Amino acid sequence: MRKKNKQKGHIPLPALARLCKIYNLLEEMHDKGETSISSHDIGKRLGVGSHNIRKDIGYLDEAGTSGAGYDIAKLKSSIEFTLGFETERNACIVGLGSLGSVIINYQMKQFPCFTIVAGFDSNINKLEIMKTSIPVYPTYEIPSVIKSKRIELAVVTEPDRNIDKITERLIEGGIKGIINFSPVMLSSPSESVYIRNIDIITEFRYVSALFTLHDR
Amino acid sequence: MRKKNKQKGHIPLPALARLCKIYNLLEEMHDKGETSISSHDIGKRLGVGSHNIRKDIGYLDEAGTSGAGYDIAKLKSSIEFTLGFETERNACIVGLGSLGSVIINYQMKQFPCFTIVAGFDSNINKLEIMKTSIPVYPTYEIPSVIKSKRIELAVVTEPDRNIDKITERLIEGGIKGIINFSPVMLSSPSESVYIRNIDIITEFRYVSALFTLHDR
Repeated sequence: MRKKNKQKGHIPLPALARLCKIYNLLEEMHDKGETSISSHDIGKRLGVGSHNIRKDIGYLDEAGTSGAGYDIAKLKSSIEFTLGFETERNACIVGLGSLGSVIINYQMKQFPCFTIVAGFDSNINKLEIMKTSIPVYPTYEIPSVIKSKRIELAVVTEPDRNIDKITERLIEGGIKGIINFSPVMLSSPSESVYIRNIDIITEFRYVSALFTLHDR
Repeated sequence: MRKKNKQKGHIPLPALARLCKIYNLLEEMHDKGETSISSHDIGKRLGVGSHNIRKDIGYLDEAGTSGAGYDIAKLKSSIEFTLGFETERNACIVGLGSLGSVIINYQMKQFPCFTIVAGFDSNINKLEIMKTSIPVYPTYEIPSVIKSKRIELAVVTEPDRNIDKITERLIEGGIKGIINFSPVMLSSPSESVYIRNIDIITEFRYVSALFTLHDR
């Protein structure tokens, strides 16, 4: 099993991204009580050809048969196993404004694979009055807390004038990934740190511009 | 002016998306007190060649000179004018769970170009106890409220078993765009409705899978 796992370990990133989306779809179908789905239907829902879907699923340890469609429960647990979704990793939130506060108090099940174990904010007054179930720290403690709590992922939620300094501190602490919801685009200073910018503000502007150009 | 506007109105979508990101960057630089920036520096920050940046800026009504770099304030207001960022449009939130509640009570400046004028939830009990500054309605009222309040954009925040029904109602009301934060992927039933899926759950899973494959 272990050996097979290693052989199959090299999944190209686009396939990995699609497998995560396939998993999501399977969870939705499973919740609705469906038991099987074809590669054609998966492809249709994700806007990808069924050939690609079959290839993606081929990277899994136990692909299951596609003849009369995939068994949803089996395919789901195969993705879980191959991609390690059962592993819980530690995450932190940087920026405890309104979005950060929601995330920190959110139902944990909403953030799969990660447990939020710390929050950071550069406003020390804010830290003193915050009511959270999770310990909060000033941002200068980022490197030491990340190391001591073995935090792998940082979720950055607020724009901060010192965002470059915050990124430096995260990397100094040995962070492996940053999901950045602030409108300031971060770029990775090293190949070993994965950075994903999810810029909601720009999304709103883009939609507005689309409507404007359409109206003219 | 109007005529020039029309001539320059055909901006390809990738250029439009980049112009929104350029605007964002200009806002950040402007806040920091910077006054000029070169196409090279813009390109570097966005991970795009400077040639593309100059081409994107060429779609604007008043591009400004690039010789000694663009004047940040001028370029910013040129983007604002061409893309119509000064126009305030109406938006609604569908799903008033924790994420939806934050958005509905968020500082309006955080969501540029749109004012949130209504909230919807299928849980009528929840509507009765909600404290918001914005009127909230049951989801079956979506079509009539969208029409009467001239809502152009819907922000969907919660997974809902009836999400297909909700999408139908939004379209029945004449919605022009949907930003979907729920993990259920929506696809547009018509070319006239812009749908953007921002799937945070899948993003967390993808990062986790990356770490897992890297560790093996």
